[in-house]
Amino acid sequence: MKIVKGTVASPKGFLASGVKAGIKKSGRADLALLYSEVPAVAAAAFTTNRFQASPVKVSKSHLRAKEHQAIIVNSGNANCANGGIGDRDALKMTELAGSALLLDKREVLVASTGIIGVYLPLGKIEEAIPELVGELSESGGTRFAEAIMTTDTVKKELAVKVKLGKAAVTIGGACKGVGMLYPIMKTERHATMLAFLTTDAAITKRMLIASLNDAISDSFNMISVDGDMSTNDSCFIMANGLARNRKISAKGSDYRKFTEALKFVTGELAKELVRDGEGATKFVEISVTGARDEKSAKAVARKISTSSLLKCAVCGEDPNWGRIVAAAGSSGVNFDPDKVDLYLGSLKALSNGMSVKGLDKEKAHKLFTGKDVSIKVDLKSGHHKATAWTCDFSKEYVAINSEYST
Amino acid sequence: MKIVKGTVASPKGFLASGVKAGIKKSGRADLALLYSEVPAVAAAAFTTNRFQASPVKVSKSHLRAKEHQAIIVNSGNANCANGGIGDRDALKMTELAGSALLLDKREVLVASTGIIGVYLPLGKIEEAIPELVGELSESGGTRFAEAIMTTDTVKKELAVKVKLGKAAVTIGGACKGVGMLYPIMKTERHATMLAFLTTDAAITKRMLIASLNDAISDSFNMISVDGDMSTNDSCFIMANGLARNRKISAKGSDYRKFTEALKFVTGELAKELVRDGEGATKFVEISVTGARDEKSAKAVARKISTSSLLKCAVCGEDPNWGRIVAAAGSSGVNFDPDKVDLYLGSLKALSNGMSVKGLDKEKAHKLFTGKDVSIKVDLKSGHHKATAWTCDFSKEYVAINSEYST
Repeated sequence: MKIVKGTVASPKGFLASGVKAGIKKSGRADLALLYSEVPAVAAAAFTTNRFQASPVKVSKSHLRAKEHQAIIVNSGNANCANGGIGDRDALKMTELAGSALLLDKREVLVASTGIIGVYLPLGKIEEAIPELVGELSESGGTRFAEAIMTTDTVKKELAVKVKLGKAAVTIGGACKGVGMLYPIMKTERHATMLAFLTTDAAITKRMLIASLNDAISDSFNMISVDGDMSTNDSCFIMANGLARNRKISAKGSDYRKFTEALKFVTGELAKELVRDGEGATKFVEISVTGARDEKSAKAVARKISTSSLLKCAVCGEDPNWGRIVAAAGSSGVNFDPDKVDLYLGSLKALSNGMSVKGLDKEKAHKLFTGKDVSIKVDLKSGHHKATAWTCDFSKEYVAINSEYST
Repeated sequence: MKIVKGTVASPKGFLASGVKAGIKKSGRADLALLYSEVPAVAAAAFTTNRFQASPVKVSKSHLRAKEHQAIIVNSGNANCANGGIGDRDALKMTELAGSALLLDKREVLVASTGIIGVYLPLGKIEEAIPELVGELSESGGTRFAEAIMTTDTVKKELAVKVKLGKAAVTIGGACKGVGMLYPIMKTERHATMLAFLTTDAAITKRMLIASLNDAISDSFNMISVDGDMSTNDSCFIMANGLARNRKISAKGSDYRKFTEALKFVTGELAKELVRDGEGATKFVEISVTGARDEKSAKAVARKISTSSLLKCAVCGEDPNWGRIVAAAGSSGVNFDPDKVDLYLGSLKALSNGMSVKGLDKEKAHKLFTGKDVSIKVDLKSGHHKATAWTCDFSKEYVAINSEYST
């Protein structure tokens, strides 16, 4: 596998664009389009929130079609809690894009991100469609990645190449965050994180779904900015087969290679989301080992990643590890607290559930002064592990989120 | 029922004190004692965190005794994650108080609050015991309430009187918060919130446990400051029978009257905790109605109460109700989103899952400018309801918690 400087439009046959439709008050780009020149199989994972945004409902329905060629995305408005009007508007977005691209609406997927409970300015989107379609190009990936941003401060995109047999397969990806970010996505169900993955691999839809599931479970589904699950989280992948590899139709060696590469892309994008988390000044990696099963390891790691107290401590470079202990213990996972070890970087702070005497406070503090903070909890009650990622909680987070809609 | 200006030492036969033992760096009072002149039955609820502080373990064990007469409490140190040393220290606290009060250590309960993972300065506590016991008085309730404070800015205490037959029964209470505050307590198991309740009612231990359970389930267990569950949360009650009412031994009319009064005390104390939440500038009441069962109503209300995004919006006086929708939908509770109504104060923002057109934004904003914010979610799928309380999330919260231990 090779990392290439690339975008969602790097895999063969993919074009992308991003334009300013006027949905965002800021006047920044807010409408994006991703297009495969040939029919592609698609898979997607959506938020498990009971309230699902209209684009999520429409995309879910459209995913029943065999093949897809386009995804239209707006930022600045979530099109959520807008009832039947919202559903109709989301569907209309697919019709507008479909009509301009000579596709059936069911071949077009849709995603939205922004404020909840505000009706979509569909007229502005309709007016922008000709420009959006006209701008589609192989070099448009970056404009796509920019147009999907909301509180993001940097665009997030990546591509990798992997050899499957003699064929060189490319996987591209772009995503946006960076608040209301605690995705629990399931394939064929519904963060506002949005991620768009493209590949020219030849793969069956069934294997694409399996691969996407494998990839998100250790990446997007293990990150948190604020512990608030969105109504709009969506992660899409389209595979158009233009790399002409032997079609992946079972979980063999090619499937594993492809999934490994996809995992790398989703992992890197997920970490970029956290690094750019609203108000974030630090990146925190939480590794849990010695769990009875993977689910327990993930539950403990994720619970720690959502501790406001820990995140404030990290912001203040205060190695107050007791907050990690409290968070781990509130995860609902059954473990023996008297066995637990805890490390700040490589420094052991807790040994068999007991505070390490003579802990070097200066050294502990130093481990919290860098941009990256590493925490490891060893439950010592099994052989399973998981890693979660989060950022610190800063005054800037509060500032960003107390001045959002008004 | 009558509210009286009172303390934990208001019920007949209760004495209290609070002194400076030197545990806190600030030099403020940090050691407190509550004492019943005659044997009392006791009940307690403790945090459900897997990591339980040593005083929690010791108090649980001591609660197996039939009667109790004292509770010793220190602030400034949680005595948690200190292993066997911590357990021995907590037990020693009960021995020291017991010895000075001529009680068996098993008749003494213990609680701690403060930083996790720092060994208790037992010598300082031992030195302060004579003063602590010497200061015990009927007027010492306020000093007790002050000595248990950590990041609290005001002491929290209350007493009520209720007639049971011809006897006037008094219930007194004191508590502290105000961070790492998201209690899920169960009786006879283990926030750092600490609450101490006293009464001169005659009641059996079994009925006292039942009454405490009833009281905390709609009060302390429905509040959140930061969603972080403590290792030390404890709520104690002692009933010494000196009011000479006919002993409550079954769930009859006296039980109901007593529990109603106890619920009032725990409810008021719980709300005081939230009002004084770390960095809080506003008080938020979240009512959920129309739930299929009480558990669902509570789960939705509590999930909304822990939304960082909503709490930031409240801080910024921004009626961004979409964040309430997203939080409700992520509660794990099954409801029909297309039926849900949502009110900001008396203003309907969401009707049948749909954003109300022409919502008066100025009016909505105004509802967020007061000190108290009221949110109501009607799931319209049943007849059960619940209310949760939280505060806003301010830059001050981040400041307090990024500068705590260092």
